[in-house]
Amino acid sequence: MGGVIEAKDQGAAGHGEDALKRLTALVAEDLAQCNRLIVERMHSPVALIPQLAAHLVSSGGKRLRPVLTLGASRMCGYEGPRHVALAACVEFIHTATLLHDDVVDESTLRRGQASANALFGNKPSVLVGDFLFARAFRLMVEDGNLEVMRILSSAAATLAEGEVLQLLIQNDLGTTEAQYLEVIEGKTASLFAAATRLGAVVADRPEAEAEALDSYGRNLGIAFQLVDDALDYAAEQEKLGKTVGDDFREGKITLPVLAAFHAGEATEQEFWRRTIEERQQDDSDFAEAQRLMARHGAVAKTIARAEAYGEAALKSLAGFPDNPFRHALAEVVRFCIARAR
Amino acid sequence: MGGVIEAKDQGAAGHGEDALKRLTALVAEDLAQCNRLIVERMHSPVALIPQLAAHLVSSGGKRLRPVLTLGASRMCGYEGPRHVALAACVEFIHTATLLHDDVVDESTLRRGQASANALFGNKPSVLVGDFLFARAFRLMVEDGNLEVMRILSSAAATLAEGEVLQLLIQNDLGTTEAQYLEVIEGKTASLFAAATRLGAVVADRPEAEAEALDSYGRNLGIAFQLVDDALDYAAEQEKLGKTVGDDFREGKITLPVLAAFHAGEATEQEFWRRTIEERQQDDSDFAEAQRLMARHGAVAKTIARAEAYGEAALKSLAGFPDNPFRHALAEVVRFCIARAR
Repeated sequence: MGGVIEAKDQGAAGHGEDALKRLTALVAEDLAQCNRLIVERMHSPVALIPQLAAHLVSSGGKRLRPVLTLGASRMCGYEGPRHVALAACVEFIHTATLLHDDVVDESTLRRGQASANALFGNKPSVLVGDFLFARAFRLMVEDGNLEVMRILSSAAATLAEGEVLQLLIQNDLGTTEAQYLEVIEGKTASLFAAATRLGAVVADRPEAEAEALDSYGRNLGIAFQLVDDALDYAAEQEKLGKTVGDDFREGKITLPVLAAFHAGEATEQEFWRRTIEERQQDDSDFAEAQRLMARHGAVAKTIARAEAYGEAALKSLAGFPDNPFRHALAEVVRFCIARAR
Repeated sequence: MGGVIEAKDQGAAGHGEDALKRLTALVAEDLAQCNRLIVERMHSPVALIPQLAAHLVSSGGKRLRPVLTLGASRMCGYEGPRHVALAACVEFIHTATLLHDDVVDESTLRRGQASANALFGNKPSVLVGDFLFARAFRLMVEDGNLEVMRILSSAAATLAEGEVLQLLIQNDLGTTEAQYLEVIEGKTASLFAAATRLGAVVADRPEAEAEALDSYGRNLGIAFQLVDDALDYAAEQEKLGKTVGDDFREGKITLPVLAAFHAGEATEQEFWRRTIEERQQDDSDFAEAQRLMARHGAVAKTIARAEAYGEAALKSLAGFPDNPFRHALAEVVRFCIARAR
């Protein structure tokens, strides 16, 4: 299936980061405006708020979600200014979620730098997250479109549900693949789907196009998260920009773990029960987890699943006009998959 | 000044809790609808969410803020159904804030029961708080009025700013009274002001009335928080329904502390520096703090300030029609002050 993703788009810029660069370049001016708006709206007389927010907002994030909103809007022929604020909304919701995630996961690294909670403490991270949520809603209200607000407030609720569900299945090897997919659809894909759907809404396109862009974003988001979960066992720390093995150490249930557990012999299952369910780990266990995964192709299986979702995302673009934005959005699918190679 | 508050309203139901009961009784039917809506909108397929939310939502809270929204709407002559959902919004924002507060403060008690974070852990408390925020915004969007959304999203941002500012002045005896007032205006009074302002907005009353109700709620909220801060040093645990001495143990800067510190001799200032700034406390220190406060009338001073804000709240009601709702809203001012007696 990966072949289709690679072959489909003839003018592809290449693999990995390059595959996102084309879309980013196409919306460069919009994105510059969006970045200015983000900085402006992070402002508060309470100086710690912009300080802490800036740490995250300017720490080398790819702005993937706002770029998707900008690109989807342009693909739909939108020429006005509103998509810039909507893209900033999406990024604020995402940033707020990252702040709360890092508190919940007790992470110390984010994008290769010390995470905000490690640097500033958990308390300001929780509260600045709340501030950014509130600012996101304020921005939507200024835009004034009820459909936009419905989409984003629903996505924010679904996102929180996905995060809670993730907590509930943590350390539980009895988790089904369906439950795992429900988690990543909630915690990751719902905001991707909202980010891209907004493109059709802001351009006042018919509901069928909004649905198609929702499907593109949702499938892309699932693919993105599957690859992220694979990378936690596969990549080197520098490449990933986050602490490799974090998921393992937290006993997080992800597809590579489920795949290796179900394919494993009795002694291997014992290993996973001890390390993931009981969280009894020593220094050599992560290497052993990687070895068992390699043995059963667990990471490769996960990436194959990501490729299938990537295919579905590409199909959702089929009905849109053949313009550079559509091609660049197709390349983003490759970007999400290629990170794993 | 307390005399005015006590004398003004002839048909007063009495002190303390009774002073809130009249308004609660007047809006009883609306409140029952609001409670049903709250339960309905807490629902999620992720069962932990309604479980955790219900722990807080049904743990004997007085529903002060939604009752204010319902009462203010009725005072303004509103006869429609929209105020019920707006009151539920306000309660959701408040509940989300409480969940995050308890995580930030590491509280173990809330309204005399184990707090949600103590019972369910910090992680679900952070995430369920996010879920409730998102649901609050979803409810507003369903209401569809942009002015309502502007008011509530701004209040939510100001609230978070107040909480961050509170963190920043924690343990700092150099905090000015003005900074302390800025904190409580942000973290408490901004949502009170929004809750009451909504009454004029939903009833489509002129901006001057919205301003007057904003001022009523804001002054009431400041009075409420001043009394709360006084009670942490004055009340018995059962009466307050929260752990007495929490503020002291956290080194929280509140008006009673600032009053006792500034009035104290050198050795007393040394005591406050050790216990509040350095947080070096032993078991007998809280009793000593209470003794020093009594010596300088620090709690009484705080309550006198609350009474002054209560007076201002009452004045803001002067221009409204002379109806039972106005009288009951006036009594709520007494309720907020009388808790301290």
